[in-house]
Amino acid sequence: MAVESSVIPEAYADLVERPVLAHVATLGPNGEPQNNPVWFDMKDGLIRFSQTTARQKYRNVQKDGRASFSIVDPENPYRYLEIRGTLERIDPDPDYAFINLMAKKYLNEDRYPWLQPGEVRVVLHFRPEHTTQMG
Amino acid sequence: MAVESSVIPEAYADLVERPVLAHVATLGPNGEPQNNPVWFDMKDGLIRFSQTTARQKYRNVQKDGRASFSIVDPENPYRYLEIRGTLERIDPDPDYAFINLMAKKYLNEDRYPWLQPGEVRVVLHFRPEHTTQMG
Repeated sequence: MAVESSVIPEAYADLVERPVLAHVATLGPNGEPQNNPVWFDMKDGLIRFSQTTARQKYRNVQKDGRASFSIVDPENPYRYLEIRGTLERIDPDPDYAFINLMAKKYLNEDRYPWLQPGEVRVVLHFRPEHTTQMG
Repeated sequence: MAVESSVIPEAYADLVERPVLAHVATLGPNGEPQNNPVWFDMKDGLIRFSQTTARQKYRNVQKDGRASFSIVDPENPYRYLEIRGTLERIDPDPDYAFINLMAKKYLNEDRYPWLQPGEVRVVLHFRPEHTTQMG
């Protein structure tokens, strides 16, 4: 997977390519920050992560698409990348192709092992606009 | 250090006690989420972290005190705790007692080794109001 973005510094591209968690902050119903870890990748310059349609975060980003991803190098906690961006689009994931791709990246398994019966999954795409970094 | 908070589930108290990073989301000048890792602890029911007065996050929380801390167990990435709260107060740290305490927790060093000349540090205190967790 190649990181193709003019926004992400080349020196930090490994944090997007390796199976590193991103902590993604979105805005809740009252504009308050909400924050939790996600599996993610980047394709065609967009950051992507999976979400079930039952989750608060799915509703959050439809109301206000601004998000911030905080990513720390597990091998060096003083090296991190923050990526701020805005929701560009939401794609369906009816055959679970994307969540299975994430299972491959993070678990090295061909199928996501924790699917729930009837779970509806989508792929949230964010366009990076700004980064901060350290280390 | 004892975690004394009616909000933090006892089963996740170790994530506050151990030297685990928190990713803290605050609100930027335009209400957008900003997110980065911090050293933190909890005392008298309040989450605390150090900040220099030159940092954007210091300005953010004075404008809007709402924050969310995302904390993942380094030994089990599927176990995490999110703590949402609001700024309660800002204390000065003129003799660097608190940042040195954090250096002890995270580096096992008596003094924070990366102080910059003339650096002004404060201690941000947040009252936890709500948690989400997994694993």
